[in-house]
Amino acid sequence: MNFLVVQRILGMLLMLFSLTMLPPIGVSLHFGDGNWQPFFDAFVALLVFGVIAWWPVRKRVRELRLRDGFLVVALFWVVLGIAGSVPLLLSSELDMTITDAVFEAISGFTTTGAIIFPTLHDLPPSVLYYRSQIEWLGGIGIVVLAVALLPMLGVGGMQLLRAETPGPVKDSKLTPRITETAKALWIIYLALTVACGLAYWAAGMTPFDAVAHAFTTVSTGGNSTHDASIGYYDNAVIEMIAVIFMFIGGVNFSLHFLAWRHRRLSDYLRDPEFGAFMRILFVSVALYTLVLWYTRFAHEPGEALRLALFQAVSMQTTSGFVTDNFTHWPGALPVIIILSAFIGGCAGSTSGGMKIVRWLLILKQGQREVNQLVHPSAELPVKLGRKPMDMRVIDAVWGFFAVYVIAFGILMVALLATGEDQVTAFSAIAACMTNTGTGLGEVATNFTSLTDTGKWICVLAMLLGRLEVFPLLVLISPTFWRR
Amino acid sequence: MNFLVVQRILGMLLMLFSLTMLPPIGVSLHFGDGNWQPFFDAFVALLVFGVIAWWPVRKRVRELRLRDGFLVVALFWVVLGIAGSVPLLLSSELDMTITDAVFEAISGFTTTGAIIFPTLHDLPPSVLYYRSQIEWLGGIGIVVLAVALLPMLGVGGMQLLRAETPGPVKDSKLTPRITETAKALWIIYLALTVACGLAYWAAGMTPFDAVAHAFTTVSTGGNSTHDASIGYYDNAVIEMIAVIFMFIGGVNFSLHFLAWRHRRLSDYLRDPEFGAFMRILFVSVALYTLVLWYTRFAHEPGEALRLALFQAVSMQTTSGFVTDNFTHWPGALPVIIILSAFIGGCAGSTSGGMKIVRWLLILKQGQREVNQLVHPSAELPVKLGRKPMDMRVIDAVWGFFAVYVIAFGILMVALLATGEDQVTAFSAIAACMTNTGTGLGEVATNFTSLTDTGKWICVLAMLLGRLEVFPLLVLISPTFWRR
Ligand SMILES: [K+]
Ligand SMILES: [K+]
Repeated sequence: MNFLVVQRILGMLLMLFSLTMLPPIGVSLHFGDGNWQPFFDAFVALLVFGVIAWWPVRKRVRELRLRDGFLVVALFWVVLGIAGSVPLLLSSELDMTITDAVFEAISGFTTTGAIIFPTLHDLPPSVLYYRSQIEWLGGIGIVVLAVALLPMLGVGGMQLLRAETPGPVKDSKLTPRITETAKALWIIYLALTVACGLAYWAAGMTPFDAVAHAFTTVSTGGNSTHDASIGYYDNAVIEMIAVIFMFIGGVNFSLHFLAWRHRRLSDYLRDPEFGAFMRILFVSVALYTLVLWYTRFAHEPGEALRLALFQAVSMQTTSGFVTDNFTHWPGALPVIIILSAFIGGCAGSTSGGMKIVRWLLILKQGQREVNQLVHPSAELPVKLGRKPMDMRVIDAVWGFFAVYVIAFGILMVALLATGEDQVTAFSAIAACMTNTGTGLGEVATNFTSLTDTGKWICVLAMLLGRLEVFPLLVLISPTFWRR
Repeated sequence: MNFLVVQRILGMLLMLFSLTMLPPIGVSLHFGDGNWQPFFDAFVALLVFGVIAWWPVRKRVRELRLRDGFLVVALFWVVLGIAGSVPLLLSSELDMTITDAVFEAISGFTTTGAIIFPTLHDLPPSVLYYRSQIEWLGGIGIVVLAVALLPMLGVGGMQLLRAETPGPVKDSKLTPRITETAKALWIIYLALTVACGLAYWAAGMTPFDAVAHAFTTVSTGGNSTHDASIGYYDNAVIEMIAVIFMFIGGVNFSLHFLAWRHRRLSDYLRDPEFGAFMRILFVSVALYTLVLWYTRFAHEPGEALRLALFQAVSMQTTSGFVTDNFTHWPGALPVIIILSAFIGGCAGSTSGGMKIVRWLLILKQGQREVNQLVHPSAELPVKLGRKPMDMRVIDAVWGFFAVYVIAFGILMVALLATGEDQVTAFSAIAACMTNTGTGLGEVATNFTSLTDTGKWICVLAMLLGRLEVFPLLVLISPTFWRR
């Protein structure tokens, strides 16, 4: 393990991250909310801390190796989670416990957007802005992780994305490739955010809300500046903008990259996961619309469609924005909506969940198993699009599925043991592990009612979900630390 | 497809099954409960029906082929389920709907033991006896299915049991092997039942109760003649007898076969699944005891241990007997207990659930995936005991896990759509699909409150669970019916 190289990277990361304290200071001064001091103190503290970590090892520019990747990935989120909580903790106006501050920061960086504040409307604008900015940073972080890093680490079958990704493939050396890919992804991400913000502004949001919501729409984070979320505006145009940009955020950014580089859209249509994403959304919007209309929950078909479209896209992309309290929707809809987040968006997107490509492979492999039973001696390949899949990828996807489900069960039982009821425990872990942030029962609106232990369990769920479980498992495996 | 051979087999099955109407007639006449007529009518009807099905095709003694096995397996349970409901339907005293009668019969044959009667204490003794007898028949049916048939069909990785099973292996011809194996298993099963019944009798049960409970203990069916189940007796000796014979019923009957043939016990100790079964029980008994005692739910450690031991074994073996309403046990225990049934007993036992050997393989393969991430180019075999596993087995187990979980989710959503609350829907499908029969919420004691649609969804869940999902999936796959 190159511990010193890892330390150097984390030191640089802290120094960089300290700079993100500056915009909230500007917001605070502009709105005169009197909350600039904690951000300034955090800026200084994180910068100093970063320098202290970086300076002694600044000459350690050795290449990272594959194995170091796991440590960097896990520490990246953990360290940023803790660093991100600093300005919240320092604010006497917020008066947060350490648990709540870390929960809020991790919830942001993992683009979960689970709310720990009883209400948002008395928060200083600088804090509202900061919450959105964290999700935005987490969003690009996850895209780089999923497009450039996890495929090379081979986590949960993500090596299948390897061929699609841009840049030279140097499997044993991480840095050059990540740097190049990350740069391109940043530009695309930034462009999408600017477009989304301008659209929101044009549709009637204040510039402040437009920026804050653009940050959390493209990142499918789902933090809002209002307690009623996007429902606050009651504006169909704003909802459509949100739907479009959540959808874009839920697509594999490798596809955006290819479309941007080749100046054509056909790459999207040739991608089997993108096709499945479209079909899933179509079916769920149709289903929700029919149920809402058939049960007379919505008074007219247009209203049913508007509610259904927004909620389907918001939950499928694991954004977690709401325009209505879907907990009270009729029949099985609330649970179906929560379950849809388990499928999630495309791999390499800002979305959470298990990712559509994995479900595709599981279904195809399930089908293959059935056919294998009928024809026991046949050799039946599993194909995605026209490409036959390596069995190693399939095994890794099965492994991911099983480990994900088992981890879910364990975390749910742990949360039950803290005294939560079954609906709350199920949907809280679902909301956190899929990085959606929106649950049922006690956690339908926010997570304030959980015990401190319960909040930490949720933090673990958010990290496990965001890191696709395996990097954390690798870190606790004896094999990893041997030698 | 050899449809006529299948018809011949089912005809013979019905004729044989009609004979099982005779003991309840004897019970009815002995107790003078006035309910002998429906059993007699059912006897005649099923016999005639069986002859009508069998006579025209009696010369069709062609060998069954592998593919026919799927049809026979599925039809076996479905046809017996319908046939078993006949005497219930014919009884004017019971006055049951078709839905309830089929639910009761399928619940019996699948050894689920989900109760559809609001109360048991006003049922005629002949019906109480009949309910137990059905579970007993279902128990040996599943053992033969799991030890002799599913391994050859290769369902859900069960080919890994193939090497262990007795008798000559003729992979393409089913009949001779099944006949030979089945005979040995019947003898063992019968001997265990007699031993269990005598023990119950000696411990103070009436002869009637002793027989009825022996039937449902060895078969891990869990039907009782009392509403309070085994709790009715409040007798520690009876509970210990139940624990021992539920445990034996939860062990792979191939092991019983080997132990009986070799006259030694070492085969048990060498079996990795048996070892895991013991360890799981040890951990859960310890956990439940500690929680019950620590929370002062039980007033003394001995009482906590007694409650914990019984419930842990009952639910792990998916028997579903109770001595206490564990729904009200503290903290996460009720959900943990329900979840333990998803693990279930050993493959080749009368227990339901996913089976311990599959969980073992999933965990080992999960561990392998983690190690593979650390050493990407190493060849790491998955071993069970000292035997490296064929990747086809592992893939089939993964497939089973995913299909099981997905089927569970779909059935749960379907039950939610009938208007049940989330706790009821979750635990009803869990109780049915694991063939445990005991749930939480509305279905904690019985399933009477469900809608008719809900009951049929549960029937499907019981069949899917008992048939290990794949045979039913094969039957609805186009590949199976092609040519
Ligand atoms: K989210
Ligand atoms: K049972």
